[in-house]
Amino acid sequence: MLEDLKKEVYEANMLLPEHNLITFTWGNVSGIDRDSGYVVIKPSGVDYEQLAPEDMAVVDLEGNRIEGNLNPSSDTATHLELYKAFPDIKGIVHTHSPWAVSFAQAGREIPAAGTTQGDYFYGAIPVTREMKKEEIIKDYEKQTGTVIIETFKEKQIDPNQVPGVLVNDHGPFTWGTSPKNAVHHSVVLEQVAEMTYHTLQLNPNGIEMSQDLLDKHYLRKHGKNAYYGQK
Amino acid sequence: MLEDLKKEVYEANMLLPEHNLITFTWGNVSGIDRDSGYVVIKPSGVDYEQLAPEDMAVVDLEGNRIEGNLNPSSDTATHLELYKAFPDIKGIVHTHSPWAVSFAQAGREIPAAGTTQGDYFYGAIPVTREMKKEEIIKDYEKQTGTVIIETFKEKQIDPNQVPGVLVNDHGPFTWGTSPKNAVHHSVVLEQVAEMTYHTLQLNPNGIEMSQDLLDKHYLRKHGKNAYYGQK
Amino acid sequence: MLEDLKKEVYEANMLLPEHNLITFTWGNVSGIDRDSGYVVIKPSGVDYEQLAPEDMAVVDLEGNRIEGNLNPSSDTATHLELYKAFPDIKGIVHTHSPWAVSFAQAGREIPAAGTTQGDYFYGAIPVTREMKKEEIIKDYEKQTGTVIIETFKEKQIDPNQVPGVLVNDHGPFTWGTSPKNAVHHSVVLEQVAEMTYHTLQLNPNGIEMSQDLLDKHYLRKHGKNAYYGQK
Amino acid sequence: MLEDLKKEVYEANMLLPEHNLITFTWGNVSGIDRDSGYVVIKPSGVDYEQLAPEDMAVVDLEGNRIEGNLNPSSDTATHLELYKAFPDIKGIVHTHSPWAVSFAQAGREIPAAGTTQGDYFYGAIPVTREMKKEEIIKDYEKQTGTVIIETFKEKQIDPNQVPGVLVNDHGPFTWGTSPKNAVHHSVVLEQVAEMTYHTLQLNPNGIEMSQDLLDKHYLRKHGKNAYYGQK
Repeated sequence: MLEDLKKEVYEANMLLPEHNLITFTWGNVSGIDRDSGYVVIKPSGVDYEQLAPEDMAVVDLEGNRIEGNLNPSSDTATHLELYKAFPDIKGIVHTHSPWAVSFAQAGREIPAAGTTQGDYFYGAIPVTREMKKEEIIKDYEKQTGTVIIETFKEKQIDPNQVPGVLVNDHGPFTWGTSPKNAVHHSVVLEQVAEMTYHTLQLNPNGIEMSQDLLDKHYLRKHGKNAYYGQK
Repeated sequence: MLEDLKKEVYEANMLLPEHNLITFTWGNVSGIDRDSGYVVIKPSGVDYEQLAPEDMAVVDLEGNRIEGNLNPSSDTATHLELYKAFPDIKGIVHTHSPWAVSFAQAGREIPAAGTTQGDYFYGAIPVTREMKKEEIIKDYEKQTGTVIIETFKEKQIDPNQVPGVLVNDHGPFTWGTSPKNAVHHSVVLEQVAEMTYHTLQLNPNGIEMSQDLLDKHYLRKHGKNAYYGQK
Repeated sequence: MLEDLKKEVYEANMLLPEHNLITFTWGNVSGIDRDSGYVVIKPSGVDYEQLAPEDMAVVDLEGNRIEGNLNPSSDTATHLELYKAFPDIKGIVHTHSPWAVSFAQAGREIPAAGTTQGDYFYGAIPVTREMKKEEIIKDYEKQTGTVIIETFKEKQIDPNQVPGVLVNDHGPFTWGTSPKNAVHHSVVLEQVAEMTYHTLQLNPNGIEMSQDLLDKHYLRKHGKNAYYGQK
Repeated sequence: MLEDLKKEVYEANMLLPEHNLITFTWGNVSGIDRDSGYVVIKPSGVDYEQLAPEDMAVVDLEGNRIEGNLNPSSDTATHLELYKAFPDIKGIVHTHSPWAVSFAQAGREIPAAGTTQGDYFYGAIPVTREMKKEEIIKDYEKQTGTVIIETFKEKQIDPNQVPGVLVNDHGPFTWGTSPKNAVHHSVVLEQVAEMTYHTLQLNPNGIEMSQDLLDKHYLRKHGKNAYYGQK
């Protein structure tokens, strides 16, 4: 069942150690088959060296296990909420990559300080509010998704244009048009977190790039007038 | 004698360079056989490339050499104090890993700023007080253990729930249910030290995570209601 | 056509990942044949692992494609402006190397704080002013070159003596007497950005080296009285 | 001539890239044969990949070339001054290792903040004063040695107990009982520079370790009552 997607999700998971985004098993990638509504995701707490495509767990959007002997990632409920709320995304990544976590623990967004961010994120990468006691106690992983969705709604951010978020005191989630594309956004998010951390130390105030420069960089790579890369 | 434990301790020692926790010979791992009370530990000042399982030194809890031609680590007396005071632990690690040392030299604990720490440490990672002249002059390595134990007693911290400490102006010790588990905690401690250092620069005040979030993360992986990983 | 230069430009591009100057495809190197006025440059958005010497694009100084099936780098127009304004240079590099970008995003130059910089750059590495709306909207890449040239003219800096610049909120460009030499300057720029960032944290004021020391280091390696290296 | 020492110096030079202490050719190691007074040193500006033991240059203490077709390192005169002033040392290293340079550029010493430094350096690692115009203009490399020697004399530091220094706005020199031992001290210096930089950010004031702790760590590894390592 969904052998191609399992392979895709497996390979995207294996990109996490390759890009130095994870320590031990602290990360997971999923992908969705939008036709069936089935989600393929890394099993919980399994070492990356021991992972194989056939170990990937399959669940439906309500979290029912469709296939697989291993427990799906404990973060599965978060992924499912995002797939339901953001209909265009087809892959999701969660890591504890260190620079992104540094901002998440500080409760600070990553401002759009330069063109590296503008090439992939159309603005600041937001941070969620802290979760409330009742959200933490009951259905914590699902509520993590809810608070992400609330953040995008309240700040009126289009998740297709800003494909990532920092969960307060936790770490980053990113998404994209495929599992691999979502990993790509995790790499970019970690890189801009590192650079903008240093920028903030060099210049604590007013580091945002101009809206004109952000428009230029984001739109030359995305949208109907894009001209970057090969046709 | 204790060939399995020697192999386990040897392999745990070899994980230190693999995880970039040590420079030269600046680290050591031990394990204890709780039945005999014998402790197996890395020999002092031997290069990691030249180490072999049969080089591991065996001492009893009073520090008497039971087996082995090489001097045990100069930190052996510290390990012995911890094994005597913390009856549930079966492995101990000492390193000079750089982020942990940065906090130890500053005399600052590592606050519980996010879920990465909360998944393994049920609260802040404490720092000991500075050692007194008489503790340094006589039985220094043993007194290093004493001051660690005092720290946990005075702050009423359960060493099974916070499996590590920073010795003031020196560096980290971690422990666990096995030598390998203790190394695991050294990796986590170093990682959270790095991330929380940056968090403190981004937000100098009030970075502690909520007690609810800490409870959630620590208890979903530890204790009778844990649900993380595979059964 | 220009097979030797293509090979040279290809090899210089491949040095970027080797020196950890790039993530994904975020960089490009070009070289110029001053006799024909043709410029050889990396194609746009192609993975480094898939690159081959024959993929290099050839354009003239007006940007007309002379040879090659792939689109030249989207930054080509910037390179062309620099080749036209700086007649002695024969290679140009653009990257998003993280320390250099940290300064660029902060809008800060890299002061000449020590001999490492003085060995290659005869003074501070300047940062351009922010680009204006009209420069961004129309002919953005060409205007990026214009603002670099303006910076050197207004500050009366000789581009042969300071072979690099930070484009505000964007990243570094470097150049040199060959594509490989330009990469060399990118490595130095990134290294001094890292070191001087830390110097500024240790000592926020007055870190400039003396003019005498700068003269000594720059001139012992460059100019007619140089005595560094082998004859 | 001095084939063993050439091999030793060659191998010590090759340790510099292995320990990530250098970029390009920015470093050099020498060794001295105290009987003949001849110094063996890396040639100037030669790539490490192309270096061979027989390329090492041989000079006497006045700087006369005794053997070798390649120019000795441009820093040779500094090495010679140190060999003449510090009679017990047999190896010297100069690098531009980034953390050490960060302190050198800031004109700050590295305080003895913890036991890692205390195991090898019996106190702070000093920084020289800035060099004067006349010292820079004439016999610069020799005067670099002179200012190092002055620093140790004025601060009454024993170079055998503090085997390294930061030259203001330049970088570190270290020494030891052999070329390899001098490299060892370069590694330690770079490591403590990194850690103490972060310590200073966490706690800007009063990070020095107690004299008692410094005595304990330095003297358990050095001097007649040392008990660290194997006999």
